[in-house]
Amino acid sequence: MTLECIGQKAKEAEPILRVMTREEKDRVLLKAAELLVSEQEKILASNEKDMEAGQERGMKPGLLDRLKLTEDRIAGMAEGLRQIADLPDPVGEVMKDWVPENGLHIRQVRVPLGVIGIIYEARPNVTADAFGLCFKTGNPVVLRGGSDAIHSNQAITEVLQQALIACGCPESAIQLLTDTSRETAAAFMKLNRYIDVLIPRGSAGLIATVVNNSTIPVIETGSGNCHIYVDETADLEMAVNIVYNAKTQRIGVCNACESLVVNRKVKNAFLPLLAKKLQEKQVELRGDEAAREAVPMTAATEEDWGTEYLDYILSVKTVDNVEEAIAHINRYNTGHSEAIITENQEHAEKFLKEVDAAAVYVNASTRFTDGFEFGFGAEIGISTQKLHARGPMGLVALTSYKYEITGHGQVRG
Amino acid sequence: MTLECIGQKAKEAEPILRVMTREEKDRVLLKAAELLVSEQEKILASNEKDMEAGQERGMKPGLLDRLKLTEDRIAGMAEGLRQIADLPDPVGEVMKDWVPENGLHIRQVRVPLGVIGIIYEARPNVTADAFGLCFKTGNPVVLRGGSDAIHSNQAITEVLQQALIACGCPESAIQLLTDTSRETAAAFMKLNRYIDVLIPRGSAGLIATVVNNSTIPVIETGSGNCHIYVDETADLEMAVNIVYNAKTQRIGVCNACESLVVNRKVKNAFLPLLAKKLQEKQVELRGDEAAREAVPMTAATEEDWGTEYLDYILSVKTVDNVEEAIAHINRYNTGHSEAIITENQEHAEKFLKEVDAAAVYVNASTRFTDGFEFGFGAEIGISTQKLHARGPMGLVALTSYKYEITGHGQVRG
Repeated sequence: MTLECIGQKAKEAEPILRVMTREEKDRVLLKAAELLVSEQEKILASNEKDMEAGQERGMKPGLLDRLKLTEDRIAGMAEGLRQIADLPDPVGEVMKDWVPENGLHIRQVRVPLGVIGIIYEARPNVTADAFGLCFKTGNPVVLRGGSDAIHSNQAITEVLQQALIACGCPESAIQLLTDTSRETAAAFMKLNRYIDVLIPRGSAGLIATVVNNSTIPVIETGSGNCHIYVDETADLEMAVNIVYNAKTQRIGVCNACESLVVNRKVKNAFLPLLAKKLQEKQVELRGDEAAREAVPMTAATEEDWGTEYLDYILSVKTVDNVEEAIAHINRYNTGHSEAIITENQEHAEKFLKEVDAAAVYVNASTRFTDGFEFGFGAEIGISTQKLHARGPMGLVALTSYKYEITGHGQVRG
Repeated sequence: MTLECIGQKAKEAEPILRVMTREEKDRVLLKAAELLVSEQEKILASNEKDMEAGQERGMKPGLLDRLKLTEDRIAGMAEGLRQIADLPDPVGEVMKDWVPENGLHIRQVRVPLGVIGIIYEARPNVTADAFGLCFKTGNPVVLRGGSDAIHSNQAITEVLQQALIACGCPESAIQLLTDTSRETAAAFMKLNRYIDVLIPRGSAGLIATVVNNSTIPVIETGSGNCHIYVDETADLEMAVNIVYNAKTQRIGVCNACESLVVNRKVKNAFLPLLAKKLQEKQVELRGDEAAREAVPMTAATEEDWGTEYLDYILSVKTVDNVEEAIAHINRYNTGHSEAIITENQEHAEKFLKEVDAAAVYVNASTRFTDGFEFGFGAEIGISTQKLHARGPMGLVALTSYKYEITGHGQVRG
């Protein structure tokens, strides 16, 4: 099918999804969950094809693991859809309701965003997850997954379409680009006539490609060069626990801590304690001169301050005060998650107000920047841009609004 | 100054503007209003240079009129800044405040968007207006105005910078690109490192250029192919008044009506009444066959349905029912403003729900889609996209939010 045709079919589904009730949408999600499990043989067989091809091409073990589906993982995908069905539907919510001087009755009402394009890598679970979130909010979705997962994605998409058809819904509520060439991806990113929003999910490289090539509005997600600042008034034991958690609990995630900023007054007391704890996970420290006086470590270069390691490495910067910490963080961060460990209320307030990031923490781990932890019940990604949605994006981030206005013959004077 | 340097200076101003109080910002706005008037000789002299150059180049009278500044127009610009000072400051507002299961205290707080780029045509009043709105919301602004207005824009920018300096604020809160070449404009649209959002203001051509070439997130504003549907139950006198107002009150604006959709059952009663009224302004009608049976008029072509005339022309499409009207409108509209004239509550509800546009009206003129009419007190433009802001954009549209999170040592399990 040509892109033009895929775009048209998505647009045809749009008005139908737009007016579906919550009950109608939930029925599809539950049916899809049921079918993912009952049709799992087919999905697993398709995944096996992708796995074999991956192994032949010498895909790395980490990537192969992300690609692999098992009964448990399919059960997890089904459970994800059931959880989305349980969430309230934001569409139709009246956000505001007022009568300005002209006497018109204006209601600001939540509506679906439109047709959503998702570009992602070889993670077949994203296929079901992205469909669930987009469908719950009344948005047709066009998926462009990695070519390594094409058979898995096709099998999952077919099962989801079966659920749509069984419930009398247009199957084009979900479509998958089966042509995974770069040319088609490039054309997809310029399909403004049919796609309202593009959300890339994956590595920094993928996201940069989409931002640089798309003419469709993009929601940028992902990269996190997150800092923790240990103030001179910090509870040092708390600081050790939080840095250890934020650095080592999961190293490959965007809300992991990549850089420690430490106040000069406590560096000699704090850094040896921290270094000892981080030794448990063999974390490599790279510090400035002042940090190296407190604990032996590699010298940090300018490049370290701006690097998201996604590895057992932590950079260490020494500062004289909270102002210098804020300036350093605002210079090198990626607008994701930043924390201060302090017992000083004034420093806490200053840090909260002046650090420019989606999530700013006092005395807690940066790892909490997550749709589930925030209580959103679901997450389509974590936005690092300021337009539309910032930070963890739940269902509401997949909606827009319209103004419904009722008059009695008013004309403008 | 190079773009790189302009970008850096804007970023330097950002943290200072971010934490300014409403009172501090209002003081600058009032000072700027005062200086625009006291320095008007200088501004008028610069404008005279632009006017002379425009006349020499044979600029059209309409464009020359938009370019021209007078004492009255400068007073209007100053008054606009005073009105912005009077508006509440959305920055700092706590939008939500909750404690999820992990016990963290999360507050969603409004913050400035960041550095805003505005690209516009030869309308010098936009210079003061855009500065006022961006500054009130704590955002540094970089302006790229049309080359025809360069002397006027420079003079206005200098006066605004004088006000900033007088109040101890960084003058780089407003910067103007003095190099108005296409190459510089193209590079400006890719300055992602320094510019957070780009807002084009002007013709459909200008907006399309920005959307197609910018890698910075864009808020698309402007084009409006607005329809009014006259239902079979419409109060025909009300319908005549509303269509007359929406078509003729100001023809060059995006919320003017460009197309009439009329129910077949009332076309013979309604179209002659309307045609007679529209004769007062010599409006040309272009209709389908059924419309031409009711009133003599030019035959409409397929192109007419999709055209924003911005002129004394109205296309007329006949439909059998409200469903057909909605389908026609959703096919050809630009997501701006659409109206139904009806006495049938069910048709009104259906139209409100199913028409996909920023503003959908029952029994009122499309001309009300406007930040002032909506009671926002100001307007930076009317968004026709669904991301971030839709419809009239007031001060809130120039803000983002952050999450300020307070814990007591929480780590993620």
